[in-house]
Amino acid sequence: MLSDGTIIALSTPQGSGALGVIRLSGPLAFEKTQRFFTPRSGQKWEVIKPNQAQLGTFKNNGALIDEVLVTAFKAPHSYTGEDVIELSCHGSPYILQQIISSYLEEDILPAQAGEFTLRAYLNKKMDLSQAEAVSDLITSESAEAHRIAMQQLRGGFSKGMEALRQKLIEFKALIELELDFSEEEVNFADKTQLEALLTELEKEISELKDSFAYGNVIKKGVPVAIAGKPNVGKSSLLNALFNEEKAIVSPIAGTTRDSIEDTLILDGVQFRFIDTAGLRQTDDTIESIGVAKAKEKVAQARILLYLYDKTTTDSVLVEELKSLYHDNLKLVLVQNKIDLAPEGHDLAFAELLKKQLPASMAPKSLGISTKKTDSLLPLKKELVETVQSLGNSNGIIINNTRHYHALEKALKAIEQVKKGLEIDLAGDLLSIDLKEAIEHIGAITGVIDTDQDVLGTIFSQFCIGK
Amino acid sequence: MLSDGTIIALSTPQGSGALGVIRLSGPLAFEKTQRFFTPRSGQKWEVIKPNQAQLGTFKNNGALIDEVLVTAFKAPHSYTGEDVIELSCHGSPYILQQIISSYLEEDILPAQAGEFTLRAYLNKKMDLSQAEAVSDLITSESAEAHRIAMQQLRGGFSKGMEALRQKLIEFKALIELELDFSEEEVNFADKTQLEALLTELEKEISELKDSFAYGNVIKKGVPVAIAGKPNVGKSSLLNALFNEEKAIVSPIAGTTRDSIEDTLILDGVQFRFIDTAGLRQTDDTIESIGVAKAKEKVAQARILLYLYDKTTTDSVLVEELKSLYHDNLKLVLVQNKIDLAPEGHDLAFAELLKKQLPASMAPKSLGISTKKTDSLLPLKKELVETVQSLGNSNGIIINNTRHYHALEKALKAIEQVKKGLEIDLAGDLLSIDLKEAIEHIGAITGVIDTDQDVLGTIFSQFCIGK
Repeated sequence: MLSDGTIIALSTPQGSGALGVIRLSGPLAFEKTQRFFTPRSGQKWEVIKPNQAQLGTFKNNGALIDEVLVTAFKAPHSYTGEDVIELSCHGSPYILQQIISSYLEEDILPAQAGEFTLRAYLNKKMDLSQAEAVSDLITSESAEAHRIAMQQLRGGFSKGMEALRQKLIEFKALIELELDFSEEEVNFADKTQLEALLTELEKEISELKDSFAYGNVIKKGVPVAIAGKPNVGKSSLLNALFNEEKAIVSPIAGTTRDSIEDTLILDGVQFRFIDTAGLRQTDDTIESIGVAKAKEKVAQARILLYLYDKTTTDSVLVEELKSLYHDNLKLVLVQNKIDLAPEGHDLAFAELLKKQLPASMAPKSLGISTKKTDSLLPLKKELVETVQSLGNSNGIIINNTRHYHALEKALKAIEQVKKGLEIDLAGDLLSIDLKEAIEHIGAITGVIDTDQDVLGTIFSQFCIGK
Repeated sequence: MLSDGTIIALSTPQGSGALGVIRLSGPLAFEKTQRFFTPRSGQKWEVIKPNQAQLGTFKNNGALIDEVLVTAFKAPHSYTGEDVIELSCHGSPYILQQIISSYLEEDILPAQAGEFTLRAYLNKKMDLSQAEAVSDLITSESAEAHRIAMQQLRGGFSKGMEALRQKLIEFKALIELELDFSEEEVNFADKTQLEALLTELEKEISELKDSFAYGNVIKKGVPVAIAGKPNVGKSSLLNALFNEEKAIVSPIAGTTRDSIEDTLILDGVQFRFIDTAGLRQTDDTIESIGVAKAKEKVAQARILLYLYDKTTTDSVLVEELKSLYHDNLKLVLVQNKIDLAPEGHDLAFAELLKKQLPASMAPKSLGISTKKTDSLLPLKKELVETVQSLGNSNGIIINNTRHYHALEKALKAIEQVKKGLEIDLAGDLLSIDLKEAIEHIGAITGVIDTDQDVLGTIFSQFCIGK
């Protein structure tokens, strides 16, 4: 993957449009463009003024391909840190293909997925976590996902990681200092102080690691399962949330068999709503598969909207909720058809339920009417607040599995150091574990040499042209 | 449609990509961009250097939307002739939408389809036929369609039209001169000379008008119908041409019922091949609809590949070919399964047929075997040559229905003038018809004021952002 040739790719989406942009990077970018491009003046493009957009013609073997706008970026002042050409032409697939072919005939190589950004990383224009943020930024669909990716791209995240690494390095230096002077019986690092420092680091890494719960759902959309007995209005709730007929609604219990999913952005946060089959014992084979699937969906969800109406009794419900509940789930009891319920019924029933459920489940409760869109506002507010409670959205947020695993490994190493301290392990042994923690944190931003395989995996997830 | 506000649009195709380009044009383009854009230096973007790509941040109400590259083009040195901003950002639909919304909040208007190019026309950056060429260029799919659009965009076409118009204006001046001095019995314009000049103009306009036959098929693809008796291998020929299974092939006569179409580019020319149902009397209702449809397709085709094999006899064939033939059709008799035919059979049979067909049909003949792709080469060559014979591809080519109709009207007016000359009509009456011809030619490039409705029709066919 790591070639040092000159690469080319279409950087704008495929298809017809007013404009298309082709990007080149590498030592031959300027020279080869001079071969094809003639500025409007008609003279050869000899003096290349960096960052200056120039209009002219693109010709191959005398044939006019297009009128183009060429901007040259001189190394190292470019995206990749190499000589870069950005060539803006008419957005015709035929023209784009002709221009790219012209270069390919001249020893220019087609860029691999993410190769421009990979080169930017290798030329130290950005670190590895920033490079990963580029891809996240392009695919981010909500304000919050965009905010996290942008923070990471702008280096806020890298600074946090580097600060953490520096603390570990200082700690290691303290331990090693004690090691060097050990024969002289000097105790530079006070053990209690060391333990306190270690606990602090442990807490910091744990918090970062825990922010993945938030970062990951923000990146992929927060999974919200809508469950409940047949015919309480689960599909009606989905349709009301989306303001369209997503799911078939009928008064016949068991209408929904497949799980129906779609995403909705509320207050900048993306939610993935999953309407599930009504939970009941059934003889219908397809419906019973649906019920099993519904339970599976709840197991993957972060929020469960458990729907009930005035016809629901608490006899089976408590057991059902207990069986559905898991540690990562926020439970919201939603009484539907609140307009039909006798006054106060919702609170009364929800309170009754809450008393019978374990305190750890701590359900919220509210009432809605899928017939009145206004009545959904408190529910939407509740959803947004629930997500906000998952993570401190102002601190550093981990949203990348690779980063999460690196932190997990760093944390394990720190725990080893802590255990070592407790049993008075020699400083040189503690140092080995500390070194490991430092390396894992360093791998996140790529300050240490990164394995080619790791780079391959990271950049292959990019689009071509980035 | 004709607003003088500042407009904005996404100029690159919709979707995710490495880059997206947003374009603004109008008096507020710079001022509003200054509100959102901060160059890397961190200082306010006060000195706007034209054509200079500047990296910086795009913020709205303090929130960082993206790192962007902004290039300003100062009026009149821009595409539209107005102040233009090109803003290149990460190709994320979320970011693109955020940036465009930021401007829309600031009295910038969403551009209508083709509005940038319309403004370029209104500001005399290009004439009407050049503006139309922009849209043709973007949609051109073959080398020849691209060449014609590019010639038109570059003004070669406009020059030809202007030369023609000037000739008509000079001719009109001659007539009017005679008119002015008529009382003095001075005969400036010799009648024979005038008639010769008129015949020349008539010929020139006719040739241009006729080039539409070529220009139009090049733009839309040359329709080639494949017809013949059932089971002679029409679908096999289609599949062999495309190197894939386009049509279902079986030894059962009448397998193809629907007409199957697809385009193929040969030597820079796009062909639309149409496989049709075998021509025969049939009791099968669906098949008989297919046969009727096949005949319809032949009626619309420019080239008919009439397929036959050694089993075909000439008894019915001559009548069938005569009934299928029309003036715009080039007929190619193709003997399939040539490898199975007794030597010389193809030539003998084709020659026999030719003798029985009217000379005007002038069919070409050749042999192929759909089993051997090599044997298709002469057929492909024949197709390309047939198209080339349609038009002198080095002269000016009309490929636009609006231009065709304008020429048609101009020609009618010229014919009126000619008739008038013959019957010694007064100069002032001749002058009226000449004025009409001049206006019709002028309407092509838009040198005369163009009707708002006409402009609306032309530019509504553009994509938004161009």
